[in-house]
Amino acid sequence: MTETALRAVSPPTHLSEANEPTSPVQRFGADEPLLLDAGVALAPWQIAYQTYGTLNAERSNAVLVCHALTGDQHVANRNPVTGKPGWWETLVGPGLPLDTSRFFVICANVIGGCMGTTGPASIHAEGGRVWALDFPLVTIRDMVRSQAMLLDRLGIASLFCVVGGSMGGMQVLQWAASYPERVFSALPIATGPRHSAQNIAFHEVGRQAVMADPDWRRGRYLDEGVRPRKGLAVARMGAHITYLSETTLHRKFGRALQNRDAPTFTFDADFQIESYLRHQGSSFVERFDPNSYLYVTRAMDYFDLAAEHGGTLANAFRGSPTRFLVMSFTSDWLFPTRESRAIVHALNAGGAQVGFVEIESDKGHDAFLLDEPEMFAAARGFLDAAAIARGIR
Amino acid sequence: MTETALRAVSPPTHLSEANEPTSPVQRFGADEPLLLDAGVALAPWQIAYQTYGTLNAERSNAVLVCHALTGDQHVANRNPVTGKPGWWETLVGPGLPLDTSRFFVICANVIGGCMGTTGPASIHAEGGRVWALDFPLVTIRDMVRSQAMLLDRLGIASLFCVVGGSMGGMQVLQWAASYPERVFSALPIATGPRHSAQNIAFHEVGRQAVMADPDWRRGRYLDEGVRPRKGLAVARMGAHITYLSETTLHRKFGRALQNRDAPTFTFDADFQIESYLRHQGSSFVERFDPNSYLYVTRAMDYFDLAAEHGGTLANAFRGSPTRFLVMSFTSDWLFPTRESRAIVHALNAGGAQVGFVEIESDKGHDAFLLDEPEMFAAARGFLDAAAIARGIR
Repeated sequence: MTETALRAVSPPTHLSEANEPTSPVQRFGADEPLLLDAGVALAPWQIAYQTYGTLNAERSNAVLVCHALTGDQHVANRNPVTGKPGWWETLVGPGLPLDTSRFFVICANVIGGCMGTTGPASIHAEGGRVWALDFPLVTIRDMVRSQAMLLDRLGIASLFCVVGGSMGGMQVLQWAASYPERVFSALPIATGPRHSAQNIAFHEVGRQAVMADPDWRRGRYLDEGVRPRKGLAVARMGAHITYLSETTLHRKFGRALQNRDAPTFTFDADFQIESYLRHQGSSFVERFDPNSYLYVTRAMDYFDLAAEHGGTLANAFRGSPTRFLVMSFTSDWLFPTRESRAIVHALNAGGAQVGFVEIESDKGHDAFLLDEPEMFAAARGFLDAAAIARGIR
Repeated sequence: MTETALRAVSPPTHLSEANEPTSPVQRFGADEPLLLDAGVALAPWQIAYQTYGTLNAERSNAVLVCHALTGDQHVANRNPVTGKPGWWETLVGPGLPLDTSRFFVICANVIGGCMGTTGPASIHAEGGRVWALDFPLVTIRDMVRSQAMLLDRLGIASLFCVVGGSMGGMQVLQWAASYPERVFSALPIATGPRHSAQNIAFHEVGRQAVMADPDWRRGRYLDEGVRPRKGLAVARMGAHITYLSETTLHRKFGRALQNRDAPTFTFDADFQIESYLRHQGSSFVERFDPNSYLYVTRAMDYFDLAAEHGGTLANAFRGSPTRFLVMSFTSDWLFPTRESRAIVHALNAGGAQVGFVEIESDKGHDAFLLDEPEMFAAARGFLDAAAIARGIR
């Protein structure tokens, strides 16, 4: 019956990327701590990032792309771990809506991540062991603070635009709230002003799946030479369902059987959807650190922009100079359109400039990463108009 | 950090119910095998059941209640394992819509279950060990076949009504398709004519969570004196989310914190929803057999009534003499109203008598188990009218 359970696949990813990433890194010493919401001054720390295009002489054309839960800084180049194309090559590149021949695009790995920015898989300066669960918990605001310190290093006072989907969109909103004068325009996609009870619930199941794996070793698996593969795979399988729509699942898989004419009456993956999910789970564990999964999901759960502003979301954007375009997808049930509407209402109440597009799509939450011509067209129009207003050629 | 992971709670349930249930049992010997869809003649086997009320002299007032995934035969009496009230005491009892002073109500534990009907936790006749994964896979049709054999034993040729929600509703549909002449009326609630790709996906994640637990021991945990508690708890946590609606989760929990004023910045259960889900997971493992969870979820996944009838659902009900009432709930996203509509269309196409009620409720799939006055009223009206037609006083 061994084929019925999730199998370990190939040797573990060695997470050399966590400490010595194949992308530029800015390192901050004891005198430049990252001040975290948890009350910890994190130092030393580092942030890994990629850039595309050229910063113009006026330093006015910088665009910050914020990545989602399991994304990274490799937006538009081959990923050094998976060997696959960048995760947003549909949107970012020469001639694309985020035109790298016009804009200087920056994307940094989030704090708590595992692709070169300090996180639980990083070597802890004191002792040579990895941080594991000694790493302090982080928030979306901490991610944004770390990005602001990166931009200071790079000499970028003001961003032309901040763009992101899902957790990336939370960072976009946090940027506009925390540093309004540094954000000329903002493009939050498929996101919300806070994480819902249902979304917290799904994340909690994923965390429990990781922590239930005896190879998690209370977070010390890297020191002990093991890896909670099965737990992380189960977490990913469950999460993956929430990224798709029922329609997508039905269209792609329906009740089709996997390379067979009749059910086997075993616990093998009889249905294509089962086989697909098992693959999603087992490939994810090759590229992502299990503890990072705990930290970054927790950061999303803690996100509640209104709570930071006396319980009124509009206060987060009061008098904002930023121009916004908010986008949602009709079939996204993780961040449904009502979440985007709440953002739009708050922006209107706060007196900000805001456009809103709900895109008809049956691809669910993942639509923001896929080929969605209406999203591309709306983003292009918004960015082109903002570029004229900003005087970018 | 021990408090962050799911804890084992109290001693394991001993599953004596699986072999010697505290309810009546009918035992079938080698000469009366249960012929399974998997091609196996299961013998010996047994079926455990409860009855309420009295069979009338005409033997015309028998109602079969079919239970859902993790339900059992204890519909309207204190559950011998949990000590809690029966699972449908809102509907079944004297003076209630399923009036036990008028009707003779029967409910049997499903084949593959763990409450006294033969399943993977039952002692295998050959050897004294439990069946574990040597137990053949079962289907919804097998469940119905076993119930038909029970009714034969009890001398009940024809049922006044078959009632059930969710997986219970699948059995109702299967009864009407397999034994139309034995079913006077049928009341399928919050169900569908087949399991959707998304529902298969959620089940598969749950099965993988169980099988990923090293204490699962390839299904041999009972022989080895262990129990995959954490895996089953994770499976239940994930499934539980699908039984509720986003609205319910928001109303009951929102982003409220658990006995604290501010987040702890740890992986403790900061949010009430986290604490609630952990409780759901850990209490479930005290009452349900992990292997049964694999078998019964699989039975639901295999269910596809149209496929049994040349791909046309209406063929399942062609010329049906049964009168139907189909019910769904507006906020049920596991078995949304469109699934019930598919049943209704097929019944109409097959020429059957059918009523349909979509009940406005924000309680999600679990609504069928809860206080839903509109459901009670509709069920009462349907049953009373059918009783008149059947000549039951």
